[in-house]
Amino acid sequence: MEIPAKISPETEQRVRASFAAQSMMTTLGARLVALTPGETRIEAPILPGSRQQHGFGHAGLTFAIGDSAAGYAALSVMAVGHEVLTTEMKIHLLAPARGDLLIARGRIIKPGRRLVIVQADIHAVEAGQEIHVALMTGTMIPIAAT
Amino acid sequence: MEIPAKISPETEQRVRASFAAQSMMTTLGARLVALTPGETRIEAPILPGSRQQHGFGHAGLTFAIGDSAAGYAALSVMAVGHEVLTTEMKIHLLAPARGDLLIARGRIIKPGRRLVIVQADIHAVEAGQEIHVALMTGTMIPIAAT
Amino acid sequence: MEIPAKISPETEQRVRASFAAQSMMTTLGARLVALTPGETRIEAPILPGSRQQHGFGHAGLTFAIGDSAAGYAALSVMAVGHEVLTTEMKIHLLAPARGDLLIARGRIIKPGRRLVIVQADIHAVEAGQEIHVALMTGTMIPIAAT
Amino acid sequence: MEIPAKISPETEQRVRASFAAQSMMTTLGARLVALTPGETRIEAPILPGSRQQHGFGHAGLTFAIGDSAAGYAALSVMAVGHEVLTTEMKIHLLAPARGDLLIARGRIIKPGRRLVIVQADIHAVEAGQEIHVALMTGTMIPIAAT
Repeated sequence: MEIPAKISPETEQRVRASFAAQSMMTTLGARLVALTPGETRIEAPILPGSRQQHGFGHAGLTFAIGDSAAGYAALSVMAVGHEVLTTEMKIHLLAPARGDLLIARGRIIKPGRRLVIVQADIHAVEAGQEIHVALMTGTMIPIAAT
Repeated sequence: MEIPAKISPETEQRVRASFAAQSMMTTLGARLVALTPGETRIEAPILPGSRQQHGFGHAGLTFAIGDSAAGYAALSVMAVGHEVLTTEMKIHLLAPARGDLLIARGRIIKPGRRLVIVQADIHAVEAGQEIHVALMTGTMIPIAAT
Repeated sequence: MEIPAKISPETEQRVRASFAAQSMMTTLGARLVALTPGETRIEAPILPGSRQQHGFGHAGLTFAIGDSAAGYAALSVMAVGHEVLTTEMKIHLLAPARGDLLIARGRIIKPGRRLVIVQADIHAVEAGQEIHVALMTGTMIPIAAT
Repeated sequence: MEIPAKISPETEQRVRASFAAQSMMTTLGARLVALTPGETRIEAPILPGSRQQHGFGHAGLTFAIGDSAAGYAALSVMAVGHEVLTTEMKIHLLAPARGDLLIARGRIIKPGRRLVIVQADIHAVEAGQEIHVALMTGTMIPIAAT
C-alpha cells in the first residue's frame, strides 16, 4: 500500500466532515490544523472544563485528541468510501499536561488493507515551549463508510 | 501489600475530593457511584457533547472514565498521604458505545508499593442491556499527595 | 460469532499440528496440555537455557507460551481453513518467574470475523504453589490457511 | 535526568555481564553488538529452533531480543548499582520475520528515576534488505542491584 504524495480534495473533505461530526471535539475545543497524507495535527486548548484534579490537562483530553490524530492519519491514506475505527490504543503519559494548549501529531507506522498501525505524540505548550506529554501506539481497522 | 476489607472514611473522603476536583468528570457528567477497597464504579451519560462521528459515545469518554475508575481502585488501597498517577494504559475498544449510559468498573490486578497494575471494564447500557465496550489494563504509580 | 460447546476433532488436529510445527515450542520444552473451545493451556519447564540474568524464567519464555496460548484459544473457534496471527500483544510482568514450571492459560475476550481479542494469564509453579507472573492482552487476526 | 555523552567502562561491563548471564540469549544465539548511552543493538540469527509454524522467526524470539535491547538502553543510563526490570511491554508485529537474522535496536523515550519509558524496533534481514517486523514500547523500573 502506497502513501500518496498529496492529499486529494475528496479525502480532505471526508476527514474534515468526520472531524466536524465528533461533538466531543467541539466540547474539548479541538481543531484539525494540518492534514497531509499519513500525518495530521490536532490542537486543543486546556479548557477550564478539561482538567484533572491538579488543574493539568486531563488524560481523557490527551487521549481523545491523540486518538483522533492517529485515526485521521490512517484515514488520509484510505481509499474512497472507507472509514477507520480504533480497535486498541496504548498511551504512555510522560509528563503532566501543563500550560494552555495541547498539540497531537498522528502518523502511520504501517499502512495495510486490513490494519493500519499508527502512532501519535502529544505535546503541551507552556510559555512557548513544547513538552512531550504522551506517546500513543495503536491499531486502526478500515470499514466501509455508511 | 494487603487489600483492606473495608474502605476507611478518610480514604473515601480523599477519593471523593479528588474526583470532584477533576473538572473533566463534571464536563462529561460522570459520577463515582461505588467505592470499595480495590474496586470502583463510575457512570457517565453519553451526553450530546460526548460523541464520535456516528453519534456513539466517544472513545475519549470511555477512556476518561475507565482511567479514573482504575486509578481510584488503586488509590482506594494506598496509605494515607498518597495519590496515584497513570503512567500507561491500553484500551481495547470492543464494540460501539451505543445507548444512554456508560459504566466503568475499575479493579486491581496487582497492588504494590511502587506500581499498581489495574484493569477496567466499560459497558454501555442500551435498552437495559449491558454491552462490553472496552477493556483497559494499565499501570499506576503512587506519589506523595501535595 | 458463537463459541461452540465442544472442540471438533478437525480443529483439535489443526491446533496440535500447528503447535508441533513451532520449533520454538520444542526448544522451550513447551507442551499443549489442554484445549477447549476458546481456552487453552500450555506448560513449559523453566529450562536451564530459558533464564534471565537472575536465574528466573526469561520474559521471552513467558511471552512465547502466553502468545501461543492466546493464539490457539482464538484458533479453536475459527472456521475450518483459517489460521490466526498475532498483530499486537501487551504483557504485564507481575512477579519473577521463579520455580520449575510455567503455565499459560489463554482465553477469548471477544471473538470476531475480522479480529479476535484475547487474554492470557501465566503462572509460575514453585513448591506446588501457583504465582501469577504475567497478564497478556492482545489482538489476533484470522487469515486463510496456506 | 541527563543521558551521558559516553558510556563508562563500568556501565559497559555491567551491561555485558548481565547479558552474558541470560541463558536465553545463548539459547537464541543473540549477541549484544552495540551499546551507547540510551541505545543498544542486539542481533540474533533465526535459528532452526527459533521458528513459528510457517518457518519464520517466532514472536518469542522477536520479543526476547527487543525486550533486552530496550532494557539495556535503559540500564545504560542508570547510576552505578542499579538494574532494570521490565514491568510492561507492548509489541506490534508488523510483518513476518523472514530471512536469516533479526536486529533489535533499543532506545529511551523518557528517562526517569522511578520509571524509564523505552522503545525498540526489530528488523529482519533477508537478502541484505532490512524489513521492519516489530515495534515495542514499554516501561522499565530501576531496582538496586543484588
